[in-house]
Amino acid sequence: MKVIGVLGGMGPAATLDFMAKVYAADAAPIEQDRVRLIVDCNPAVPDRNAATRGEGPSPGPMLAAMAAGLAAAGADILVIACNSAHAWSAEIAAAAGVPVLSMIDAACDALAAASPGARRIGLLAGQGCLDAGVYQEAFAKRGWTAILPGAEGQAEFMDALYRIKGGAIGAAERAAFSACANQVAGAGAEAIVAGCTEVPLLLGPADAPVPLIDATWALAEKTIAWARR
Amino acid sequence: MKVIGVLGGMGPAATLDFMAKVYAADAAPIEQDRVRLIVDCNPAVPDRNAATRGEGPSPGPMLAAMAAGLAAAGADILVIACNSAHAWSAEIAAAAGVPVLSMIDAACDALAAASPGARRIGLLAGQGCLDAGVYQEAFAKRGWTAILPGAEGQAEFMDALYRIKGGAIGAAERAAFSACANQVAGAGAEAIVAGCTEVPLLLGPADAPVPLIDATWALAEKTIAWARR
Repeated sequence: MKVIGVLGGMGPAATLDFMAKVYAADAAPIEQDRVRLIVDCNPAVPDRNAATRGEGPSPGPMLAAMAAGLAAAGADILVIACNSAHAWSAEIAAAAGVPVLSMIDAACDALAAASPGARRIGLLAGQGCLDAGVYQEAFAKRGWTAILPGAEGQAEFMDALYRIKGGAIGAAERAAFSACANQVAGAGAEAIVAGCTEVPLLLGPADAPVPLIDATWALAEKTIAWARR
Repeated sequence: MKVIGVLGGMGPAATLDFMAKVYAADAAPIEQDRVRLIVDCNPAVPDRNAATRGEGPSPGPMLAAMAAGLAAAGADILVIACNSAHAWSAEIAAAAGVPVLSMIDAACDALAAASPGARRIGLLAGQGCLDAGVYQEAFAKRGWTAILPGAEGQAEFMDALYRIKGGAIGAAERAAFSACANQVAGAGAEAIVAGCTEVPLLLGPADAPVPLIDATWALAEKTIAWARR
C-alpha cells in the first residue's frame, strides 16, 4: 500500500474534511490495514486569491518546498487539498519528484460518471481559482462550458469563504454557497462542481437543484484507488 | 510560531479529532496565522494492547522512526495522539531530538485545574495503557488513586474500542464507554480521565456523572500554548 502525502492547511478545516473522506472511502475493519497519510497542514501558504490578483506573494515556492518535504518524508504520491492551489501544479510537480494526483481531474471524472450527458457545468470556486482558469481549462478539454455565479453572488461567496477560513462555519455561509448553486442552475447548469474545498463543508447534494460534485470526495476516492493499486 | 509534529493514525479518527481540537483551541481570523501541523497519520503502527500483552511486535521502533521523520520534516516539537503509545515515550524522545509534549501530563494538569480536590480518579483507557501503568504512575506522583472499571466493563470497553478503530462509531460503543464511566463514579471516582483517544469521540462531559477530562482536548490546548509561546 502506497503512502499518500497531502499538501494541506488551505484551510485546516478543508484538510480535515479531505482526511475524513479518505478514511470514509476506505473503511477497513483492522486499523493496521488503513492507509497512511503524511499531511503538511500549513496554513501559512500565501493566499491563493490575492496572488492570482497580483496583490500578494506567490504560494508556489512554499507549495514546492512542502511537496519536496513530503516526498523526502516517504510519500509515494502527493495530493493537494485545495482546488485553487492547483494553479501552481507545475511548480509542485517539479519539486515533488513523485506523481501528483489532480483534484481537478478527479472532480471532472466524477462528474462525467454521475452526469454523462452534462455539457453546461456550474462552477463554485474561489476567485483565484476562477481567474487562473484551473477548472475552465479542464472543462474545455471535455467540451464542457463553465457556468459561473453572477458578480454579486461570487462576491458573497468570497466573503463567506474567508469567514469559514477564520473559523465561522454556519447558516450565513451556507446561504451564500447555496445562492450560488441556485444561480448557476438557473443559468442552465446541468451539474455543479463544488470546486473549492470549503464548499462541501456546508453544501451537500441535497442543497443543490442539480447534481453537485464534491471535488474533495472525488479526490479522496481517487487517492484510495491509487494507494491500493 | 512553532511547527508541531503529530505521531498519529492510532487510529485515524482519533488523529482527526486531535487536529480539529488544535484548531478549535486556537481560532484565528486569518488563515495564515493558524498553527502548522505536520501529521504522520500511520495506522500501521503495531497494536499497542497486543504488544503490552506480549502477543505482538513492539510499536516502539516504528514510533521512533516516525518521530525522527517528523523532526527531519521540520517539526519543532512532537505530540503523540494516542495515550497508550506513551508507554514508548522514552524510545520516541530518544529518536526525536526535539521535545515531546506529554498527553498524560496535559490530562493530569487539566484534571487538577478542573477538580482541585479530587484524589480518586476514574480511568477509562485501553488495556495496554492500563497494563503499562501509563496513567497510574502519573497519578501516583500527584497522590491520586486510579479507579478502574470492573473486568467485564473493561472487556466491553475493549470490544467497543476495536469496533471504533474499524469505523463503527455508534450507540453501542457509546453505551460501553458510558457504562465504564458510571462504574468508576459508582466506585468513588471524583473525576474521570478519558485516557483513550477514542473515548471523547463518543463521550462528552454530559455523559458522565462526575467531571470528565478529555486528554485529547488537554493536549490540544497545551500544544497551542507551546506553539504560541
